[in-house]
Amino acid sequence: MTRIIRHVTPGASPGALIAPQQQVEKLKIHVVCYGPDEVEEADVGSLSEALELIGSHAVAWIDVTGVHDVELIEQLGKHFGLHELALEDVLNVGQRPKIEEYEDHIFVIMRMLHLGTVLNVEQFSLFFGERVVITIQEYEGDPFDEIRERIRSGAGRMRTCGGDYLAYALIDALEDSLYPVLEQYGEWIEHVEEELLREPKPDLLETVHRIKRDLLWVRRAAWPHREIISALQRIESGLITDDTKVYLRDTYEHAVQVMDVVETFRDLSGGLMDLYLSSLSHRMNEVMKVLTVMASIFIPLTFIAGIYGMNFNPNSSELNMPELNWAMGYPVALGGMALIAIGMVVYFKRKGWI
Amino acid sequence: MTRIIRHVTPGASPGALIAPQQQVEKLKIHVVCYGPDEVEEADVGSLSEALELIGSHAVAWIDVTGVHDVELIEQLGKHFGLHELALEDVLNVGQRPKIEEYEDHIFVIMRMLHLGTVLNVEQFSLFFGERVVITIQEYEGDPFDEIRERIRSGAGRMRTCGGDYLAYALIDALEDSLYPVLEQYGEWIEHVEEELLREPKPDLLETVHRIKRDLLWVRRAAWPHREIISALQRIESGLITDDTKVYLRDTYEHAVQVMDVVETFRDLSGGLMDLYLSSLSHRMNEVMKVLTVMASIFIPLTFIAGIYGMNFNPNSSELNMPELNWAMGYPVALGGMALIAIGMVVYFKRKGWI
Amino acid sequence: MTRIIRHVTPGASPGALIAPQQQVEKLKIHVVCYGPDEVEEADVGSLSEALELIGSHAVAWIDVTGVHDVELIEQLGKHFGLHELALEDVLNVGQRPKIEEYEDHIFVIMRMLHLGTVLNVEQFSLFFGERVVITIQEYEGDPFDEIRERIRSGAGRMRTCGGDYLAYALIDALEDSLYPVLEQYGEWIEHVEEELLREPKPDLLETVHRIKRDLLWVRRAAWPHREIISALQRIESGLITDDTKVYLRDTYEHAVQVMDVVETFRDLSGGLMDLYLSSLSHRMNEVMKVLTVMASIFIPLTFIAGIYGMNFNPNSSELNMPELNWAMGYPVALGGMALIAIGMVVYFKRKGWI
Amino acid sequence: MTRIIRHVTPGASPGALIAPQQQVEKLKIHVVCYGPDEVEEADVGSLSEALELIGSHAVAWIDVTGVHDVELIEQLGKHFGLHELALEDVLNVGQRPKIEEYEDHIFVIMRMLHLGTVLNVEQFSLFFGERVVITIQEYEGDPFDEIRERIRSGAGRMRTCGGDYLAYALIDALEDSLYPVLEQYGEWIEHVEEELLREPKPDLLETVHRIKRDLLWVRRAAWPHREIISALQRIESGLITDDTKVYLRDTYEHAVQVMDVVETFRDLSGGLMDLYLSSLSHRMNEVMKVLTVMASIFIPLTFIAGIYGMNFNPNSSELNMPELNWAMGYPVALGGMALIAIGMVVYFKRKGWI
Amino acid sequence: MTRIIRHVTPGASPGALIAPQQQVEKLKIHVVCYGPDEVEEADVGSLSEALELIGSHAVAWIDVTGVHDVELIEQLGKHFGLHELALEDVLNVGQRPKIEEYEDHIFVIMRMLHLGTVLNVEQFSLFFGERVVITIQEYEGDPFDEIRERIRSGAGRMRTCGGDYLAYALIDALEDSLYPVLEQYGEWIEHVEEELLREPKPDLLETVHRIKRDLLWVRRAAWPHREIISALQRIESGLITDDTKVYLRDTYEHAVQVMDVVETFRDLSGGLMDLYLSSLSHRMNEVMKVLTVMASIFIPLTFIAGIYGMNFNPNSSELNMPELNWAMGYPVALGGMALIAIGMVVYFKRKGWI
Repeated sequence: MTRIIRHVTPGASPGALIAPQQQVEKLKIHVVCYGPDEVEEADVGSLSEALELIGSHAVAWIDVTGVHDVELIEQLGKHFGLHELALEDVLNVGQRPKIEEYEDHIFVIMRMLHLGTVLNVEQFSLFFGERVVITIQEYEGDPFDEIRERIRSGAGRMRTCGGDYLAYALIDALEDSLYPVLEQYGEWIEHVEEELLREPKPDLLETVHRIKRDLLWVRRAAWPHREIISALQRIESGLITDDTKVYLRDTYEHAVQVMDVVETFRDLSGGLMDLYLSSLSHRMNEVMKVLTVMASIFIPLTFIAGIYGMNFNPNSSELNMPELNWAMGYPVALGGMALIAIGMVVYFKRKGWI
Repeated sequence: MTRIIRHVTPGASPGALIAPQQQVEKLKIHVVCYGPDEVEEADVGSLSEALELIGSHAVAWIDVTGVHDVELIEQLGKHFGLHELALEDVLNVGQRPKIEEYEDHIFVIMRMLHLGTVLNVEQFSLFFGERVVITIQEYEGDPFDEIRERIRSGAGRMRTCGGDYLAYALIDALEDSLYPVLEQYGEWIEHVEEELLREPKPDLLETVHRIKRDLLWVRRAAWPHREIISALQRIESGLITDDTKVYLRDTYEHAVQVMDVVETFRDLSGGLMDLYLSSLSHRMNEVMKVLTVMASIFIPLTFIAGIYGMNFNPNSSELNMPELNWAMGYPVALGGMALIAIGMVVYFKRKGWI
Repeated sequence: MTRIIRHVTPGASPGALIAPQQQVEKLKIHVVCYGPDEVEEADVGSLSEALELIGSHAVAWIDVTGVHDVELIEQLGKHFGLHELALEDVLNVGQRPKIEEYEDHIFVIMRMLHLGTVLNVEQFSLFFGERVVITIQEYEGDPFDEIRERIRSGAGRMRTCGGDYLAYALIDALEDSLYPVLEQYGEWIEHVEEELLREPKPDLLETVHRIKRDLLWVRRAAWPHREIISALQRIESGLITDDTKVYLRDTYEHAVQVMDVVETFRDLSGGLMDLYLSSLSHRMNEVMKVLTVMASIFIPLTFIAGIYGMNFNPNSSELNMPELNWAMGYPVALGGMALIAIGMVVYFKRKGWI
Repeated sequence: MTRIIRHVTPGASPGALIAPQQQVEKLKIHVVCYGPDEVEEADVGSLSEALELIGSHAVAWIDVTGVHDVELIEQLGKHFGLHELALEDVLNVGQRPKIEEYEDHIFVIMRMLHLGTVLNVEQFSLFFGERVVITIQEYEGDPFDEIRERIRSGAGRMRTCGGDYLAYALIDALEDSLYPVLEQYGEWIEHVEEELLREPKPDLLETVHRIKRDLLWVRRAAWPHREIISALQRIESGLITDDTKVYLRDTYEHAVQVMDVVETFRDLSGGLMDLYLSSLSHRMNEVMKVLTVMASIFIPLTFIAGIYGMNFNPNSSELNMPELNWAMGYPVALGGMALIAIGMVVYFKRKGWI
Repeated sequence: MTRIIRHVTPGASPGALIAPQQQVEKLKIHVVCYGPDEVEEADVGSLSEALELIGSHAVAWIDVTGVHDVELIEQLGKHFGLHELALEDVLNVGQRPKIEEYEDHIFVIMRMLHLGTVLNVEQFSLFFGERVVITIQEYEGDPFDEIRERIRSGAGRMRTCGGDYLAYALIDALEDSLYPVLEQYGEWIEHVEEELLREPKPDLLETVHRIKRDLLWVRRAAWPHREIISALQRIESGLITDDTKVYLRDTYEHAVQVMDVVETFRDLSGGLMDLYLSSLSHRMNEVMKVLTVMASIFIPLTFIAGIYGMNFNPNSSELNMPELNWAMGYPVALGGMALIAIGMVVYFKRKGWI
């Protein structure tokens, strides 16, 4: 949970770049450059190698995995004229998703969700200008393989468009990657619901709580994404073409739908907690009824048996337990007990308890 | 539940048409063409047959049932100049209701609700221009029979108006078809309420939960519908005449009322859950009172009986259970028990427990 | 509850007039016509009679009670140029309150509340132009007697003003008639509150639930009323004079206050449900304490009595229940029991349970 | 509670003045007139006396306590040209706070809160123009003594400013008088919180409920006050000088802070109800554990004692209770019971129940 | 808690300066003056000493700790032309955070949070103009050491900018100082969550309640901070340079993130209360099951033992307890008990209770 908030030293100079503590083993720089008719792609070791590769290609995508190499980030910033505050945000992972417009590039921070045994939130930083797209991820693994494939194959309009279209494609893919995560939660909710109506086990409580908590994190990603995509559509500078904006309208619809689903799931999971409590109350009621019925039937009977277990001396007086010497004493006592028991059972049947 | 969210491959090229997995047995294309004085109507097998039938009729309504024929959708798109993103949305059933305006047609997605043993949500896609209305439904069965009848009979102003009026009529009929569904939930709520006040059975909990969950889905349809109808009224291009907009104002009122009812029902069903829990708590209280009264009356009595069931030897000392040999020992013991029991009963009566 | 939503056949032609199913025994048309110096008033049997009566009076108020006479409504519509959609709304009782502005008249739907054994909601439809006011109510009984009296007596400015002032007076009276209803709920809430703090009886739960549910209906009336009165104030056409608008400002304040009170009452009644549950929990706690105290005191004592009720043969060994033959066996046993009981009582006193 | 809503006869002529039912013993009119260099002050018996006293003083403050003298209110209205609807509101105590601007005066209704054994809400009506301020209170006792003192002493800028500054001072004092009331609730909340964590007594429930309910009333006063003060700042006519508006900005901040505190207290008191329920549930759990532990330990032991209290005849067969005649029968039975008891205790220790 | 609301005498003259009751031992005035190339820094004893020190330095920061020296505040106000209402707010600690713009300086009140054994809220008052920054804190200890260090070392752009940049740096440091506090709450929430799922101890309830209550206070600071920073960005006068506004945009993002985290934590802590109650209900259920199982198994057995402990005289009739003399009486009785016990166990196993 500590990752959800920025790690800063209060009063630190703005723009002072400090590497975050989480580190991937090995920083990776992957460069893809392409134009309408050609593609070049390589893992490079430094910024200068990357720049050499890019050459005069129409569009270049520099994809950095790992955020602990402060020096590289600084070089990128210096070479492409990125703002120091933006670079600071790249390193301070755990930022709220946001968008910032600069003169010749746009800076976007979004959240990628990975659902393994727990929900992992990864910061995705994106700079894009007319010809260059720089992405910085925290960990290996992203939902962009399909895009890489499309660049390589030249399918669709990817290769003929500029950096803004690539940026749109990345944002769209990231937003779409939320669907499978949500679908998983949807299935969990449905599963837990059925289980709860069958039997309110305590581990279900934990699951419900986890779903509720995780959906809070998903929501914290989904709401700002919508704002970001909306802001991208309203950008007036020529950095985003009108063509791309039409596609962004579609992505915006997706973002709205994601939020819609998240809110619905939150409502549903809230209902699950109610269901758990109600179901538990009902169980408790059942348990109490069994106890009450058992106790109410047998306690009076045991009392009667106790009466005739007393040792008052029948010889000292005729009033002392004459029943013990009656010929029908025992059968009458048993019969009385049976009558009481039957009466109780009838009473509880009428009450609907048994 | 999985149907509520789009099925996409993250990073897939926008506009790449992929058929959804749910399929109706047989795709059906029904065409109705009409002008002020004539009507023609037929089930056709292909787009070309449909176009032939349309000929020079003033208005044509192409009604497709089934969304798995990607090729047909592509032909439609190509012939009528529909946007690829719109076509993608038609196939990706489970879209959030939305409206998109293009140069010569308007694209609307809405949700149809069918209430059988469970609540089914069906995507209804609608393209309409001046002369052509294309509707694409997922399954057989729709609330448009009355409209077909009105076209055939020439009643009302249907035949003398353009495609926008037909589109309005369809949207209005769809919106009105939500009323019977809501009425059903209203009756359920009323029924469950009465039952709950009589006895909080566990299956009522399930019903309450289902009503709450279903109303979430209805709400997910109702809110965007209102926005869509509102957007239709504000469209400035000539695609919707002012006359039709007056009628849309009425439909808008209906959409607002649907939302109003949905929210009221949600409040009511939330109250039902409270009622269930309160009612259950009250029951539990009753059960506990019976147990406590029974136990509190008989446990002391049984204890006294136990006392005189002890085997201390009266012969070894005068202090050892002399009561056993008293002449009035047994009657006094019974009397004492009766007094205790009466005291308890009075005490509990005073407390209002019995 | 079914009355809260419109009864329509989906796809029915807009403006097709269908009578609602609820019917008053006898439709009643009451006409009041007046000018600064004269009043005429009569129950009439048909529209033509009404028109004859109206003659050249400055203002006419046609008050129809009963909504099942489709023909009359149609005649009214035709004669006064009312829109067919408005007429449809008049007949489809259960409409959401609304206002619609037409060229020469304004159409308003509001809700009248009658609080008998249950809360009844009645639709009140109002058309008004410069000289004519038409009101259509569902049932007999309305809060307008005072207004009729003011017209007859010529008190206040009623007779010197136009139809807009009469319409204002009707709307104001209707809005004011919500106060006694709210006051009733206020008294119930106060009453239930006191009762709950004394003893959480189950019928109070039903009352709380009814109050909550009824306030939902009141709220469904109160919110749109505020919008309607606000809209009336903003109407630019000359149909409402500035003088009348000043009075409407006052009515608007009342509408705001009604909403304010409704929301406060909703909060209060929500608190009552909490109070019921808390109070019930507290009771249950008390019941459990009694049971626990009784059981905890007597169960160990009964056990000891049981011990000395065992029949081990003291003759077969000196270890077998030698206490039975001790001279002080019985007093010591009783004393031990007393000590245990006292210890228990002290323990529970310390815990604050008794 | 009935006082929170207006008492009106539906349909009554607007502006018809009717005295409210609550009456103070004796109506009081206090007049303070002052200019930069002089003050005159007196209790007067009628409006004419008041007017005589005012004479040519720069500013006059007519302070009426008691709202049952309809005639006086009418005279005031006539003499100072007050609107009949405003006068009606003065008499109909229980009005929602509001502000109305007229040509040469401004009319404000606010709520004064007095916290005695219960929370009392008093209506404070204020008319002010350039030279005259009229205040109408329901009861004796107000937070304005400090202001009277400032007028008398000539401290601050009071005597050199017009009626608007006096009105500001009154509104500011009224708003500030909410702080001590809130402080009291703050202390109660803190006190109840501590008590609840110590022991959830039932009278605390009543206190929590009362705090919640009272805060609803405070809130009903605080929200409109903010709107009123905001509206005063925006008034364009010269009735409020720019200098006074600067001071009103400060009062506005106070009003915002009052609302802020009220909302925080409402959240806190909502949390208290949760705390009560949770604390009660915890107690119940403790009670149940004691019962369960006692019962579970002694019930099996009592059963064993019961076994050996049976009277099967050892003489009729060797199988009939041979234990009774064993030499070690009794010690072994006691030992077995001790083992079972110890086992139970260990089991419950492990479960953490004892 | 009393500190959260202003301490005022209702009706007191605005701008009358009264010292708050809380006092630090010794008032401290620390002055830092600097220009691009020089720094001077000293603790001074009076305003005149401070002014002397400031001399012709480009920027001066007067940092006052302690708010009880009314005279000093008055001198500051007089010398730097600060508004009396602002000075009043400085002394009335417990103000809502706010910003006020004056001709040649801006006045800001913010809240500093210190998390020791309890959460402390301190008022931070800030006046800043082009060349002078005055800060007034209540207690020793602030998050500004880093800033002092930056001024001394001349690192970053601090020394070359004006008072607005220093003010920004202070606000930014204050806002950043909320992160560690939030992080602490985040860790507590995570910790409590784990504990609750393991065992719902009562002290956790207290912790949850405290977290909820504290977050209310944090929220009361965080929301207005966002508004303040937003207002600073919109200030049009030259008091804040465009360069500084770019940095404020970053601070604004932080303020939004703080609010975002606070709201998320509030949701989470609300869920913890549910978790506590659910977990407790589950425990209670377990306790009840143990009791019910124990009682239900042994009560019938004890009853049977009671039967054969009765003393009916077998000699007076053949019907009187002939079992006692049967050869197999005892074994059969024991066997019957065992069967009943086994039956019960099987029954409860099937129910899933053991």
